[in-house]
Amino acid sequence: MLGAIEAGGTKFVLAVGPSPDRITARHTIPTRDPATTLAEAAEWLAGQGGITALGIGSFGPVELDRTAPRWGFITTTPKPGWADCDVAGYLAGALGVPVGFDTDVNAAALAEHAASGSTGGSLAYLTVGTGIGGGLVLDGRPVHGIAHPEVGHIYPRRHPDDRDFPGTCPSHGDCLEGLASGPAIMARWGTSLSHLPADHPGHAIIADYIAQACHMLFASVAVEEVVVGGGVANTPGLVERVAQRARELDAGYLPGTARHCVIRPRLGSDAGITGAMMLAKAAAAEA
Amino acid sequence: MLGAIEAGGTKFVLAVGPSPDRITARHTIPTRDPATTLAEAAEWLAGQGGITALGIGSFGPVELDRTAPRWGFITTTPKPGWADCDVAGYLAGALGVPVGFDTDVNAAALAEHAASGSTGGSLAYLTVGTGIGGGLVLDGRPVHGIAHPEVGHIYPRRHPDDRDFPGTCPSHGDCLEGLASGPAIMARWGTSLSHLPADHPGHAIIADYIAQACHMLFASVAVEEVVVGGGVANTPGLVERVAQRARELDAGYLPGTARHCVIRPRLGSDAGITGAMMLAKAAAAEA
Repeated sequence: MLGAIEAGGTKFVLAVGPSPDRITARHTIPTRDPATTLAEAAEWLAGQGGITALGIGSFGPVELDRTAPRWGFITTTPKPGWADCDVAGYLAGALGVPVGFDTDVNAAALAEHAASGSTGGSLAYLTVGTGIGGGLVLDGRPVHGIAHPEVGHIYPRRHPDDRDFPGTCPSHGDCLEGLASGPAIMARWGTSLSHLPADHPGHAIIADYIAQACHMLFASVAVEEVVVGGGVANTPGLVERVAQRARELDAGYLPGTARHCVIRPRLGSDAGITGAMMLAKAAAAEA
Repeated sequence: MLGAIEAGGTKFVLAVGPSPDRITARHTIPTRDPATTLAEAAEWLAGQGGITALGIGSFGPVELDRTAPRWGFITTTPKPGWADCDVAGYLAGALGVPVGFDTDVNAAALAEHAASGSTGGSLAYLTVGTGIGGGLVLDGRPVHGIAHPEVGHIYPRRHPDDRDFPGTCPSHGDCLEGLASGPAIMARWGTSLSHLPADHPGHAIIADYIAQACHMLFASVAVEEVVVGGGVANTPGLVERVAQRARELDAGYLPGTARHCVIRPRLGSDAGITGAMMLAKAAAAEA
């Protein structure tokens, strides 16, 4: 039996099952301080009849370098109590099983890649919600680099109808996250994108910013698909607008352009927890 | 003995040697039509006393999918005569040796990665010259995706002192290549960047655009180093300006930021041909 955690800033999703595509029980707990949250997660997982490995897809930033002393830690998050938190180490100790660990968005990218049926293909998973983050599977493997992909902090061009908003990112102001995340939309227009009227310019503005991130991923790492998930991406019509705008930005130029697509998650809201199950499976195989 | 070709749009650099770091003979020929150029390259390589494998780092776009019928082709280039040209196949047939094939910039990235002494590290190679192109080695492996990295056709933010220039890219106008390549500099200011006075605003403008590409690579694929080569990058002080501007764009935010660096090629102008020698070595090992 595999165990999995999708560790988010507001909730932890817990699951167990015999394989990544068969989750037999799941449970959601609110994210509080690390001691309370991790103990409750461990208790639920331990009560599910014995797991042999655990996979964790975590909010970040996290340490993914297997040779680093702080591998499996959440590192410098501003979230109170969670900076320098040894998430993987605590759970490995509490449950006595091997642990696989990656970012929540890399886990989602892994699961969406598997769901696409591609073996060697390349895919990006972009979540647009409270924050904006990206995960990458290139040539069939998740990308870590010296830390992990972020994507949310690139600088898109300002839309001509959105020149004055200063953006909400504490570090960068009007980076992608500062312009197109849920809080940035709320700060600009006082409500969520899905509550704006269908003819409100916000729909085209937000689609343009997300499309610029998609184009950047097509143009710089040659992914075939960008899968766009997260709360903002649930706005009706948004992903279709993003796909159309990304095609305009490419202008038919890039090699492979005919295969580029921007889609919603095939696994819906299960991408992250399914990816965490895949990390558990890989950890079991390596142990 | 390994053989190597750095196949560029204006010249082909040919080399042979017992290992990638020991080139014992080299020769440069001008790029003319494919039949003339490839025959002359094959003739020189055949005359060097018997090579056992050939590596090619080529201008593009190229087909890198080993399972594709057109693997090893230059595909859709506007360069007269070179579209749909079976570069790898011709040379494999003419020389009777196994051939390794990648983009010129991926070859350069491979060589710079090896020269950095890193084994698992991640590095981007950006060439800024007649065109702008990028190669990527992530977690120790070159990236292909469904085609190959391009990087030159992302859209940087327009610099406040460079609002009106429409850009020179036939497909995108003011994409990175349309703003910061050698021809774009020439179109704007009538001379090369290195011939502009030291106090000309062009230096800061071009550095800003290249720095935006570096930041995008740090922020989206978490490379440790961006190596900036090519003719424009030889402008005194430019790479240092780019490094400084990239630090400003990050604002100390990204995980791993303290390790990020923007540098000139450790191998100077030998990065591409050295990488092609590495492709030859890999092809020999696989044969």
